[in-house]
Amino acid sequence: MAVAVTELEIHLKKFEKELSAGSVSLVLLAVLAGAEEPMYGYLIAKRLADGGEGVLAGKQSALYPVLRNLSAAGLLDSEVEPSVAGPPRRYYRITALGRAVLEQWTASWTTTRDFVDSVLERNTSRGAKS
Amino acid sequence: MAVAVTELEIHLKKFEKELSAGSVSLVLLAVLAGAEEPMYGYLIAKRLADGGEGVLAGKQSALYPVLRNLSAAGLLDSEVEPSVAGPPRRYYRITALGRAVLEQWTASWTTTRDFVDSVLERNTSRGAKS
Repeated sequence: MAVAVTELEIHLKKFEKELSAGSVSLVLLAVLAGAEEPMYGYLIAKRLADGGEGVLAGKQSALYPVLRNLSAAGLLDSEVEPSVAGPPRRYYRITALGRAVLEQWTASWTTTRDFVDSVLERNTSRGAKS
Repeated sequence: MAVAVTELEIHLKKFEKELSAGSVSLVLLAVLAGAEEPMYGYLIAKRLADGGEGVLAGKQSALYPVLRNLSAAGLLDSEVEPSVAGPPRRYYRITALGRAVLEQWTASWTTTRDFVDSVLERNTSRGAKS
């Protein structure tokens, strides 16, 4: 293949950035909807990492701006609390609006996922034939 | 639920826009990779619609800027040809770079999809318990 690796990498980075834009918000809301107590950033990142790799692999710092945006939009509430050791921590919990949004986003995710999968499936087998 | 519908709609629109940013490029590449001949916009939209709804439902015009971007990036080639009736049509085909990119994007999509699904699954059942 005569394609430069760096060119591929640039396209992949851009694609992953676009793909993660929506999905990071979705998984953050889901984790906080499933949490029994308010969580701070590091705990959220750890719970996400339980699921293995994904769009966030090694990009824990990418969570913080998204948490702030979700809070500014009223989908999360947050509170700063002192920690036993180290600097104070900001704890997040999902709001009623956040739960309503999560429900809609989950439905939208499912539709989009099934659509993309069906297009990939049909056209990959078609491509393989020729 | 005391949440205003319009507020939910605004959040949903934003989410769908983010989610579709990457996935539209992916499905366009996939369709053209599976095509035996160059295709013009309307045919691509029709083949996408075979798969049912999805992020593009009723948004055929959203394809054109993405086709132009993919061409500008060298992932597609295009050629204008006269049509029997009506204005000339621009026919697109995937390039070697486009095929290489599609392979990487498909892998990235699969990883992200499985990650999001696993987070949603774990945290939905967790939320349902409490």
